[in-house]
Amino acid sequence: MSKQYYTPSPNTAMDILQSLEWRYAAKRMNGQPVPQQKIQTILEAIRLAPSSMGLQPYSVLVIEDEALKKQIRPLAYNQPQIEESSHLLVFAAWSSISPEQIQEYISHTARVRNMPETALDDFKNTLLQMASSRTDEENFNWAARQAYIAFGTAVLAAAAQQVDATPMEGFNNAALDELLQLEQRGLKSVTLLPLGYRDAERDWLASLPKVRREADKFFIELTAADTALQNA
Amino acid sequence: MSKQYYTPSPNTAMDILQSLEWRYAAKRMNGQPVPQQKIQTILEAIRLAPSSMGLQPYSVLVIEDEALKKQIRPLAYNQPQIEESSHLLVFAAWSSISPEQIQEYISHTARVRNMPETALDDFKNTLLQMASSRTDEENFNWAARQAYIAFGTAVLAAAAQQVDATPMEGFNNAALDELLQLEQRGLKSVTLLPLGYRDAERDWLASLPKVRREADKFFIELTAADTALQNA
Repeated sequence: MSKQYYTPSPNTAMDILQSLEWRYAAKRMNGQPVPQQKIQTILEAIRLAPSSMGLQPYSVLVIEDEALKKQIRPLAYNQPQIEESSHLLVFAAWSSISPEQIQEYISHTARVRNMPETALDDFKNTLLQMASSRTDEENFNWAARQAYIAFGTAVLAAAAQQVDATPMEGFNNAALDELLQLEQRGLKSVTLLPLGYRDAERDWLASLPKVRREADKFFIELTAADTALQNA
Repeated sequence: MSKQYYTPSPNTAMDILQSLEWRYAAKRMNGQPVPQQKIQTILEAIRLAPSSMGLQPYSVLVIEDEALKKQIRPLAYNQPQIEESSHLLVFAAWSSISPEQIQEYISHTARVRNMPETALDDFKNTLLQMASSRTDEENFNWAARQAYIAFGTAVLAAAAQQVDATPMEGFNNAALDELLQLEQRGLKSVTLLPLGYRDAERDWLASLPKVRREADKFFIELTAADTALQNA
């Protein structure tokens, strides 16, 4: 909760880049358990990730149980990391956004910030109007985008602790939602993230260099002169 | 590019959480420039962020020019951080996905991994089929989600270096696309990220505690027994 400045390790910036260089989407894992403290750090990073309006319109399912992972694997093109992982995370976005969910967020905010709820009336009305002006599908797609912010945060929080994480979009969302009874929780699955340790010997991808778009094509530096020229 | 294990700082895990606790969506910035090395680290973290299939179907516009920031500010509800930032990043997703873009990715992958392009034929066909089976709007929405992974990575890479970053979705996308001539680049703006330093004295949000959903509501631990009961 503290907003105090702290002194970061001088290697923090490098650690972030080294962590991102080190990580890759492991295709095989070795089944070794990830210590609970590292899992808790990853989960806390997810929980602290930013979201639009701070609403956090998604939940994260945490699955360690082997039997359940075994049931999920065939729903995800039989990818072995589902079972070879230590923990499987399922990111699931709110399927719709209700006034009750917004009210819960407002009440929680008032409690945490020790202020009367009425001080948040304008903010609440903005949220209510935003949600009601969009279809359930539009709200879900917006919620899913927020979940992707946390999803990216999780990948980096794992890598910073030398835990492998394989981002997965390829699975049968409807079948997984049914298995995990997500509809009755007001959720729809968006992504999977197996957490564990790479099995480099069995993983064809482990030794291949990372492919990223070259910086001079990926970034575009712009000035007003550029846009004036273009728009002239 | 290295896949070697490295020895992380023992504080890495804590740094990630401390960074996330330290950060918030600064509503006012003080105009101080962020050193180029920190900007480069943030940009490199964005470039290294994962994306589905590794396609990176988005670009990031980097705007340091004061005159251009001034033109953008009214398109973003006049939010002062746009002008008070050191650098303004615009995350823009591909508006559609063409066979040429896929071919460029395949050729680049073959070069980086020193393999014949034909070894990537199956992968290429998977990408081509995926893109052609969806509408431009569906492809754009998928590309936007990938951009959100990098967006979250950028926020954390900034915070790890004590650089403030304010994630913004609220702006006139169409007007910004026109100003920056994004359509002719095959892009549509998705999010903004001003980078700079908080002006805590002028920022009402700076001193307020962070609000996040409580862990016991946000996370759902599941076992096969849970789903069997539910599905019984």
